[in-house]
Amino acid sequence: MQVVPPLPGRGSPICIIAPVALLVSAAVAFAGDEDADLLKTARSLFPPLPKDAAKVDRPITPERVRLGRMLFFDPRTSGDGSASCSRCHLPQFHATDALPTSIGARNRMLARNAPTVFNSAIHTSQHWDGRFADVEDQAIHALTGPGLGNPDDRSVESRLDAIPEYPGAFRSAFPDDAKPITARNIALAVGAFERTLIAPSRFDDYLAGKANALSDAEQEGLKLFIGTGCADCHRGPGVGGDGFRKFGLFADYRKATGANNPDKGRFDLTKDPGDIDKFKIPGLRGVAITPPYFHDGSINALPKAVRIMAKVQLDTDLADDEVESIVAFLGSLTGRVPADYDRMPLLPPGGYPRAVLGMPR
Amino acid sequence: MQVVPPLPGRGSPICIIAPVALLVSAAVAFAGDEDADLLKTARSLFPPLPKDAAKVDRPITPERVRLGRMLFFDPRTSGDGSASCSRCHLPQFHATDALPTSIGARNRMLARNAPTVFNSAIHTSQHWDGRFADVEDQAIHALTGPGLGNPDDRSVESRLDAIPEYPGAFRSAFPDDAKPITARNIALAVGAFERTLIAPSRFDDYLAGKANALSDAEQEGLKLFIGTGCADCHRGPGVGGDGFRKFGLFADYRKATGANNPDKGRFDLTKDPGDIDKFKIPGLRGVAITPPYFHDGSINALPKAVRIMAKVQLDTDLADDEVESIVAFLGSLTGRVPADYDRMPLLPPGGYPRAVLGMPR
Repeated sequence: MQVVPPLPGRGSPICIIAPVALLVSAAVAFAGDEDADLLKTARSLFPPLPKDAAKVDRPITPERVRLGRMLFFDPRTSGDGSASCSRCHLPQFHATDALPTSIGARNRMLARNAPTVFNSAIHTSQHWDGRFADVEDQAIHALTGPGLGNPDDRSVESRLDAIPEYPGAFRSAFPDDAKPITARNIALAVGAFERTLIAPSRFDDYLAGKANALSDAEQEGLKLFIGTGCADCHRGPGVGGDGFRKFGLFADYRKATGANNPDKGRFDLTKDPGDIDKFKIPGLRGVAITPPYFHDGSINALPKAVRIMAKVQLDTDLADDEVESIVAFLGSLTGRVPADYDRMPLLPPGGYPRAVLGMPR
Repeated sequence: MQVVPPLPGRGSPICIIAPVALLVSAAVAFAGDEDADLLKTARSLFPPLPKDAAKVDRPITPERVRLGRMLFFDPRTSGDGSASCSRCHLPQFHATDALPTSIGARNRMLARNAPTVFNSAIHTSQHWDGRFADVEDQAIHALTGPGLGNPDDRSVESRLDAIPEYPGAFRSAFPDDAKPITARNIALAVGAFERTLIAPSRFDDYLAGKANALSDAEQEGLKLFIGTGCADCHRGPGVGGDGFRKFGLFADYRKATGANNPDKGRFDLTKDPGDIDKFKIPGLRGVAITPPYFHDGSINALPKAVRIMAKVQLDTDLADDEVESIVAFLGSLTGRVPADYDRMPLLPPGGYPRAVLGMPR
């Protein structure tokens, strides 16, 4: 069970300065203990990743995980047979799709960039604007949203009901339900699978006490990541994933990225003027191998993304070697692929009836 | 190296009767030797699968296979980043897509059903109308065809050239080439990978002499498969995959399948009236788990497909137990997944630039 601890003092960019100053003075005063201090500071900012993201009302049972895994990789969950959760979360790209913004069923262009699903279940909300409370909430809305494009819940339920093995797999996963194939249970099963997708990296080995898990350059980058203020938002076990921030505190993000787009983030959802250009703080685990960057996938290179973030969020012009250093640290956040995410399940056969696709017979 | 041997006497449906009569009389005359006779007949019809489908001018080198595997599963080979070879050949469905007819890049509906790529490299031509000589010929045309939808070879070449690791992987695979990233080399690499995708099944164990690899019911089905005449076309190591036949020798296939479609098969390619409704004889390996069936994916259930084939190709009305028996045999053709086809490679990261997709910045 994972609860991201409250992060004090995140309300104003001014607060970012405090821990920086502390760290820098500590480093100067006790140079011999520098490594120990860095580890101590890092541990206070980055509590350990949980083993999984189970919750009391979101249990991870082997039956649910097995079913969720099947559904996650099955395009027959989509309205036209072309998409599945894995269409945007390909194992080939660390559970992203290498696209600026994703393409869903029926070729619908999605509004924003697909983040990795690894470790996402520990985030305190889902999607760039936080519109979904958790991975189950995300999954149930994906069924009839642009990702999977089903006209209604019933259509996907009855489609799965007609495929051998699924009725039995649902009964095993939800033994108390008279009618187990429901959109809700699809979401609970997919969610159970996603809650197992925790991907620890070398950074976690370092936090656990293995000092040489990070190279000197990476530790230097970690120090800068904290010292520059990045870790004021990108903290917690997800190195982000908790709360929202305006993208562009010191300058309009569109100017910095060159992305001439109207996306106002959370404002488009809440209509609260205080939410203009506010987006969920992305978790940075896996960031080094999951370009392109930002909610609109407007930036392809990580160094450029780091430089832009420092500028528009922290009013800081990073030197080239500082950018390089932070990028080196971010590379240590690339997680090990969670067990068998890259091993495709063989799904029960069952053709997609032509009629379902509106194809002539 | 694999050459499918010439199949004598395939020209006319009348010839189908001969081996049937021989088998039946043999079974009656030497009941004690029935098992041995069946094996002997089967061995004469189904030469062993090769270990791979390498050819002198299509060498399988580890470097080509490794590169081909990366390309096969990389959607950045497509014009819009949404498709790869694996979009139609998903590991989840034994290298098919569970769709009646496939959906390619830019959401283009393809004309015909995607057959499994397992064992396909030993077929004597590719695609339902045999328009491509081999898997390399298929792959190079897929780049700019509806499957991958690139406007031209150059666009995919330059896209791959910009992704880290690919230039080096191409150099390793094609060390003698001054400019190794070419559409031709993409096809040669993908082809090399595909030539390794040989998927032997329990039927091969049986042919190799392990009599109990097939159950009694499956051996009975094999006998019927030969005796009814199915094996007159579906023979050779691929249990098909060699040559063409009119679909609907005794009745229009459209009447039997209910598929009201204008597809005239090889005729649409050659314009030879003798080719009307002629299609490649599909290889039946994997057939039990790769519905829907026929070039148009019009039939979902294998028993129905078997019944239709017997009727329209052999003018035979199969009894229910005969259909069941043949279906049991066909189940023994489900191959073991070729090494790691279901294990997705982690691809070098590299975002798909927005401009390439015609997206506003």
